[in-house]
Order: sequence, then structure tokens, then C-alpha cells
Amino acid sequence: MRQTFKGIGASPGLAIAPAFIWKTEEAYIPQESRVEDREAEASRFQAAVDQARVDLEAIRKSTEEKLGADKAEIFEGHLLILEDPDLIDAILENVRETGINAEFALHETSQSFIRMLEEMDDELLRERAVDIKDVSGRIMRHLRGVAGSDLSAMPDECVLVAEDLTPSDTAQLDLNKVRGFITEVGSRTSHSAIMARSLDVPAIVGAGVGLRSIQPGTLVVMDATEGVLLAEPAAEELTAYREKKTAYDRRKAELALWKDKETLSSDGRHVELAANIGKLEDVQKALDNGAEAIGLFRTEFLYMGRTELPTEEEQYNSYKFVLEKMDGKPVVIRTLDIGGDKELPYLNLPKESNPFLGQRALRLCLERPDLFRTQLRALLRASRYGNLKIMFPMIAIVEEFLEAKRILEEEKRKLLAEGVEVAEGIEVGMMIEVPAAAVSADLFAKEVDFFSIGTNDLIQYTMAADRMNETVAYLYQPCHPSVLRLIRMVIEAANREGKWVGMCGEMAGDQTAIPILLGLGLHEFSMSAGSILPARELIGRLSHEEWRGFSREAMSLTRQDAIQQYVREHTLGGQPA
Amino acid sequence: MRQTFKGIGASPGLAIAPAFIWKTEEAYIPQESRVEDREAEASRFQAAVDQARVDLEAIRKSTEEKLGADKAEIFEGHLLILEDPDLIDAILENVRETGINAEFALHETSQSFIRMLEEMDDELLRERAVDIKDVSGRIMRHLRGVAGSDLSAMPDECVLVAEDLTPSDTAQLDLNKVRGFITEVGSRTSHSAIMARSLDVPAIVGAGVGLRSIQPGTLVVMDATEGVLLAEPAAEELTAYREKKTAYDRRKAELALWKDKETLSSDGRHVELAANIGKLEDVQKALDNGAEAIGLFRTEFLYMGRTELPTEEEQYNSYKFVLEKMDGKPVVIRTLDIGGDKELPYLNLPKESNPFLGQRALRLCLERPDLFRTQLRALLRASRYGNLKIMFPMIAIVEEFLEAKRILEEEKRKLLAEGVEVAEGIEVGMMIEVPAAAVSADLFAKEVDFFSIGTNDLIQYTMAADRMNETVAYLYQPCHPSVLRLIRMVIEAANREGKWVGMCGEMAGDQTAIPILLGLGLHEFSMSAGSILPARELIGRLSHEEWRGFSREAMSLTRQDAIQQYVREHTLGGQPA
Repeated sequence: MRQTFKGIGASPGLAIAPAFIWKTEEAYIPQESRVEDREAEASRFQAAVDQARVDLEAIRKSTEEKLGADKAEIFEGHLLILEDPDLIDAILENVRETGINAEFALHETSQSFIRMLEEMDDELLRERAVDIKDVSGRIMRHLRGVAGSDLSAMPDECVLVAEDLTPSDTAQLDLNKVRGFITEVGSRTSHSAIMARSLDVPAIVGAGVGLRSIQPGTLVVMDATEGVLLAEPAAEELTAYREKKTAYDRRKAELALWKDKETLSSDGRHVELAANIGKLEDVQKALDNGAEAIGLFRTEFLYMGRTELPTEEEQYNSYKFVLEKMDGKPVVIRTLDIGGDKELPYLNLPKESNPFLGQRALRLCLERPDLFRTQLRALLRASRYGNLKIMFPMIAIVEEFLEAKRILEEEKRKLLAEGVEVAEGIEVGMMIEVPAAAVSADLFAKEVDFFSIGTNDLIQYTMAADRMNETVAYLYQPCHPSVLRLIRMVIEAANREGKWVGMCGEMAGDQTAIPILLGLGLHEFSMSAGSILPARELIGRLSHEEWRGFSREAMSLTRQDAIQQYVREHTLGGQPA
Repeated sequence: MRQTFKGIGASPGLAIAPAFIWKTEEAYIPQESRVEDREAEASRFQAAVDQARVDLEAIRKSTEEKLGADKAEIFEGHLLILEDPDLIDAILENVRETGINAEFALHETSQSFIRMLEEMDDELLRERAVDIKDVSGRIMRHLRGVAGSDLSAMPDECVLVAEDLTPSDTAQLDLNKVRGFITEVGSRTSHSAIMARSLDVPAIVGAGVGLRSIQPGTLVVMDATEGVLLAEPAAEELTAYREKKTAYDRRKAELALWKDKETLSSDGRHVELAANIGKLEDVQKALDNGAEAIGLFRTEFLYMGRTELPTEEEQYNSYKFVLEKMDGKPVVIRTLDIGGDKELPYLNLPKESNPFLGQRALRLCLERPDLFRTQLRALLRASRYGNLKIMFPMIAIVEEFLEAKRILEEEKRKLLAEGVEVAEGIEVGMMIEVPAAAVSADLFAKEVDFFSIGTNDLIQYTMAADRMNETVAYLYQPCHPSVLRLIRMVIEAANREGKWVGMCGEMAGDQTAIPILLGLGLHEFSMSAGSILPARELIGRLSHEEWRGFSREAMSLTRQDAIQQYVREHTLGGQPA
């Protein structure tokens, strides 16, 4: 029977293959009993933990070889769980003191951890519950003597259908066989989704329990870009998907050719294509996609999903990691942008009626110099490991920029006095995301080293429309003349002072916007890694002068739909971008 | 003993006179008892109600003579309370059925009404509680035979000190004696505050129970503009206040000379000074202050403090009242601007994370054509009674204006088809309060008949700073170059299309901003009535060319403080405005 399933596209691509139904073992619920020899039972448990460690070290090693050190970090985390006294020692103690069987002790203790974490209102802690489930399941299988390769019965070519995949399941997928996978649960940010993107295997998650009706061996076609899976497709559907897959694969191969090229217009004028990153693991993906720089490193991840501020040392290590990994390529690190839609519960900030118009980002940092100075010190200390540029968010008036820069200079002087090495000539710039800053860009251009236009916020303020609010979504128009004019003002003001201008909002990676931005003279485009290669190819199609003429034409139109239509007709062959 | 008291300045001015302490009679709490003759008791109650009616009709009449029909409306409301079956008939029935004494029945029933209304989260309903307290107190005094002039012991010249003043107390103040009043309770919008402004008597409200320590006959000086009262001032303070009062009175007399003059620069170029109004009673005040037009009639009052939408008829009557009262002078009526900080509980709109960036004003009206069309019909029907101009708020893109205008045209055609008379050539304009609209004002100027710049919102969006949020109040800068540049763009765009531009935000009445706005060529300034005469005088000081040069100079400066300083030095003799 033909069936359609819809889920979250976690890793793009197409797959056509028979379904392999992988049943997660039924949750094993052990019976409680008492043992005679408590010490022997404790040893049996310790042996299972040791065997789990051997497994995980092997998985960690092979993941490191296949996907790099940062991807293997998940399993460092798993190995640490095996050393966690609250879990392992607590179980050993329970066995020794009460004579309870190890299986039941493991079940009780791990479940109470998992339940506690799952109830947390924090995605990162809920992910931690998944890790503990994965590790304790592995110990349990060793205790029960049922361990072994769980995916051994896999046919030579298949789409894997499962309730869920643990990170270790995913890392161990045999990519010679698995063409893609789909799971009942999961989100775009769950470990298995992240792993799928690293492995470059098409994946859909969160498709629901409906998947259970798929029969083993059924032919399925999967369009993970769209988040759709079709079981038993009709003949014409199968033909259409085969063609789509061929086109997709060809396009992918074409784009791969652009990876190590310079980004040049057809007459050889260079612009910089950079990546936006929000986690350490994103750096590798940026490099894999040919990023020439990191145009926006969001530092919020360091502050979120925890119960207290990160230390200077933690921050220093993260900044150093990224700078070293980028190996001399520019890395623009944005200081903390909290507030708006991003809260830090442990700061106990007062509730605001309109958080997007409230004390967010630099406004908060200037009020909380403790927090701000710690981050600046960590940045300055890390600066000698690469090409760091520091960027301040949410600036509306020149005084804010000058005050932030003054504090930065002060921390630099202190560090130098302490004998700490700090790079010379670190560029200090600002986001342009408040309309006031765009309108007065000429005043700012005299003070900054660079601008980066944050279109996500700039558009929402310019249109006075919350970008998270569905009822006003029709006003979120990147290519509206008002937005384009503000961008033009910023670029012209910067050019007059000889400063460079980048863009780090979604718009920078939008194929309909890039031609106009090129023509306006934007110097740097920072986007999701996956948008870089298509952008590089697009930019090479015309000369700088042609892009300029193109941009002038587009901007003479008065509505976003007309402007987008114009771009599509003239660069994309009339196709939606 | 010298003492200082601080309250809310409810009506400006200075007064120096002995204190007259007016004790509100102790809340009289009657004992419950039973009467022999129930019918006689009911008649006694009815007689008290009838005497209260005689009082109130006299007060209504004298208020109408002294202050005009709209001020007397409060007492129409009081008279209606005397007809309210839920109150009066319920008491009569209670007396007849249970034989309870009328005093107790009145106390119980009125108190339960008052308590219910006081608990409401709605200022207008809480004001209604004050009215019921006033009326039922009056009936009670007649029942008890203690009625009579409550303020009869007043000396020839005094500052009245009271816990509270009912509207009827306030209306009956002998202005030959009372130089000003101060009360423990009340807000700027309570009836007594409104009445004080109409009577033009200095008043401070909400000064707290501390007032009870003022001894009768003590000399007090009162600066109601600042909301400060000083009891037993030192000799030098008294001298200083006397001088201040003399200067204030002289200034007031000077300004009064400007009331019936045209608003002209020194070389005879006219600009229009208009008033912002939010309630029907504001129209008289606008005229009293020499307003040449109503530049903004906020229609929200029709929708607030009630439990359902106002009917077309109610709206029609209000619009007609204002148009007739303005007698051919322009009246710009803004369509409903709900959302943001103004909620209508009965619409059950979904809660928004950032209401200022949400579905407010015209955005909501386009989604709720039922609501919008009713208002437009009422406006169109009222149009033949004066010089109506219709204005749409919160427009970001041209499509919104065109759609609103299309609906207006459609309703007009329907009315004409129904044989209803509609004025010819009603001007249709829009607010400029979204940055996108300012930046693309040239596109809008081709479609509208006029613009009115709403600076309160324009500033908050341009700066991305909630104007109600104290923590970002430092960013609310009307004279910031970014704001001034947007205003200039709007005026220049309108001039190119031959359309007029007004301003109806707070900024339009700000003495520090007016000189710059004049120089930029703003055509109409709409402000609180009290700001009109000082503005008219200021405008006459220089010629149009001088204001232009002045504006250019100010706008070459890069910070609000420098700009404001420049204006003060060159027009206000260095004094804060």
C-alpha cells in the first residue's frame, strides 16, 4: 500500500532503496532479586562497565578517523558517564549494601537520572538524558550477555527505519549499505541529526509512530531535503524521484568542484564567503563547505543549557579551538547576544513586555560589566591563536560602541600589564541591525573597523514585525526596497571611510538576494555552511559591472515580489531560488 | 513646621494661600434594622433619590453654563445612576420584601457595586465606582437629613486640602475662593483631575495620607506644574515662589494673546498648529488653546473600558460631535490603533511575545474587516458634518495602504448606493511610524493625500527600544540624527509629490524639536493642547529662511545632547525647554 510520511529534514539528500526495519530492543525491565555474593555481583557490574568502555573507545576512535575529533567528542562524553560516581559508584554501593541484583540497580538509578533530565525545560539537558540512556543500555546488554553488533542483519542497500537511533548507533552505520534513515522521534538538533549531517547521509527525524506500518523490504523513496518519505511509490512517482535524485547528485558533484576555488566574479573581483557558526562542531562543516572565514561566531552556546556563567577559561578554550581550527582565516566573534528570544534563566533578568525591544545583547553587557569583561578577556587571550575580529551586537548610538571599545581597550591594557600576550591590531566592528545604526552608518563608519549587517533583526525592526510572530510574517521581507535602501546606505557610508561591510543574516545566503548585494558592493557574505558553494557558483556567473547594473535595475522596482521575480528571471532562469 | 508634599501634577499653575482642610465626612456605616411600615420606608428612600436628582440637575446646569455641555456630561451620568434599576429598584424591592431600613439597604447594594467595579482591571470601570460612590453618598445624606453645601465654611482665599474630591465637589468649587487643591488619592485621568484642568485651577492629586498633618490655616505654596506643595515655607522660599507665580501668571497672560492669532513665522509663512485628542471632552480644550485643527483623534477610547465593540451608531455620534464642534476646521481621525500596549480583552486576541512588533492597529483591522468596516462606515457617514481626514496607523508596506483604501472606497460606494450622504474629496493619509515607511516615503507619497509622523513609535522602532521599558530609556532620543534624518526623508519625499506632512507624536510639541522641524519644512504640528500657545509664540520668532539655516546647523551635529544644546542656546536663551 502506498503511504506518505512527513518528518523533519535533518540532513538533506535523496535515497531510493528497500526499507530495513530496525526494532530498538524492547525496553528491558529487570526483576528485582537478591544475590548471595554481593562482592561477586559488584564485580560482575564493574566488568560490564569495563566492556562498555572498550566498546565506546573503539567507537570513539573510528568516529575520530571517519569524521574528525570534534564529532568523536560525543563519545568522550559517553566515556565520562562511565566514570560518573553519581551513577556508577552509586550502583556499586547499592549492590554491596543491599545485595540487590546489578540489572535492577542499574535500571533504577539510570531511570531516575533520565526522568529527571527529561523533565528539564532545556534541550541540552534532555539530550544528556539520551546519552545516559545510550550508555546504560550498553552496560545492560553486557550484563545480560546480549551485546554485539545491533545492525548486523542489514541488507546491502537500504533505508533504515527506526524508532530512534542513539549517537553510537548512528556513528556505526555502515555507509556502504545505508542510503538514508528515518526515525519516529528526534529534532533537528538531536545528536543523531547532527551526526547524519556530518556523515552526509540523508535523514528524516520526528516522523512519528506511523512508521511502524512500513513492512520490511518495502521499496521507499526518501526526500530528506523536504522531510518526506514515500513507501511503495507508484511507477511514475518512482521515475520522477529517480530523475530528481540524479539531478541532485549531479548538482552536488558540480558544487563540490567549487569547494577549493576562490570566490570571484567573472571578471576576477573577489568577495569573501564565510560561515555562521553557533557550536564548536560547526567549524569543521564550514571548512568542508569551503568557507573562507567565520563571519559570525555566535557565542551564546557557551552560556546556554547550564546553570551558571561560563568561566573565562572555558570561553578562552572555545575561542582558541575555533581560531586554531581556522588556521589564520578570519574569525569574527560576536560578543554575547542574550535577551530577545534567548534567555539565560540563571541571570534572573526582569521579564520584559517586548524583549526584542529590550535590554538585550550589548545593552545588557554594558549594564553587566562583570559578564562582559570576562568574555573580552577570554577573547583577547585567545587572539594570538588566529585571525580574531571582535564584533558588538545591537548598537543603536555611537556612544554605545565607544563605551564597549573603551572597556575592551581597558581589559587589553590590564592583560598586557599582567604579561599576557595579546594579538596586535585586532579589528573591532559592530553589527548593523538597529535601523538607527543603518541610517547613521556614516557616523559609525568613522569609529569602527568593519560592519556586519544582521538582516534578521534589521528586517524585523525596520518593518516593526516580530520575526517569530506568524501573524505578521508577511512583513518579513528581505528584498523590500526599504531594507535594500538601508543596506545600500551602510555600504556607501563604509566605502567612504574605507571600511569593509559583511552580512551575517539569513539574507546573505539567499540566492535571490545575493545578486543585489553583490551589485551594492557588499564585501563579505556569511551564511550557513550549506549555502556557500551555491553562492560561489552564482557569483562567478557575471562580472562586477554586470552585477552593479543588475542591482540598480532591481532596486528601481517598488515591491519585494517584483524584485525577487526580476532576480529569478535574470540569474536563476526563472526558477524559485 | 515646614513640610514638603509630592503628588501628581493634575492641572498646572501656582497658588499661595492658607490651607483649608476639608474632611470628607467619615464613611457612614448604617446599622441594620427592621421597619414597621415597609411602604413608608420605600417612599422615604424614593424621596431621597428625588432630592438627589434635584441637586444633580442644578449642578449639571451650572456646570454647563460655566464649563460647557461636554463637562456637564459627568452629571448626566450621575443622573442615569439614579435611574439604574439594578441599583435603585433593587433597593426598593429589598426594603419592600424584607422590611430592612433604607440606609442599610442602600449601603449594602451600593457597596457591592463599588467593590465589584474597583476590582476591575480597567481604569474606566474604576472611575465608574467613584461615580456610584458620589451618587449613593448624596442619597445617603438626604436619607439622613444631613445634606447641604459641604464646602460652606471655606475662607475667602485658600488652597483646598482633601482626601478626595468627587466630581460634584469639584464642579461646585467656588473659584473666587479656591486658588488650588491637593488630594490624597487620584490619578491624572480621574474625573476631579480632568475637571481641574477644565476649570483651569492648579491641582495636585495622589499626594498620599501625609497631607493629614497639615494644620488648618497654615500658609502653603503649591506648584502644581511640578506636583509639589510646601507647607509653612521659609521666608526666602515664599519670596521665590511669589516671584515664580508672578512670572507664571505674566507668561500665561502673554501666551493668551496668541490664542486667536494665525501661526506664522516672522516673515509670514503659515504652519498649522493642531491638537491631539483622545476623548470628546478634549475638543473644547483644543479650541480654548487656539488649535487650528485636530491633527490626531485617537479613536481607541470608543473601544476601551467596555465589554463589546462599539456600534456604528455610537461611533458615528462621536465623530459627528467632534466634526461639528470643530466647525469646518480639519479633523484627522485615526482608525483603530489597538494592540501594542493597548489591549481589548473582549477581542480575545492571542498573547504575543513582542506586542509592539505584533498584529496591531491596521494590521489587525485588515485581518478583522468586520471591525474595520464598521468604523469606516461611521466615519464616512459623519464626514458631511465637517472637514474630515482619515488616517491609517502602523503601515509598513504600500500594499497595506492600498488595501485599506480599497476597503474604504468599497464602503463609500455601498453607502452612496444606500442613499447615504458622504462628503466629497475626504483626504486619506497614513501615519509614518514604522521605519520602513519613512525610508520608502517616496513610494507612499504617490498614493496618500498626507502623512503624519508618529514619533513615539517611529523612535522606538528606529532605536529598537521599547518606549515603556525603563532600562532602555536612554535610547529614546527624538533629536537623534537617525530620527531627524528619517523625518527629513519623509518631508522631502512628500514635498516632491506636493503632499502635506504633519507630526502627531510628543516631539511635535517639544520646544527643543520644533525649531528643527520648522526648518525641515514640516507643515502641521499636532500636540497636547497645552503646548500650542508656546509653540505659536516660538514659531513667530524667526523667518522661514532663518529656521532653515538653523535646522541645517543642528543636523550637522552628531549627538542628541549636542543638538538639543544647540537649539536651547539659539532659541531658548540656553534654558531647558
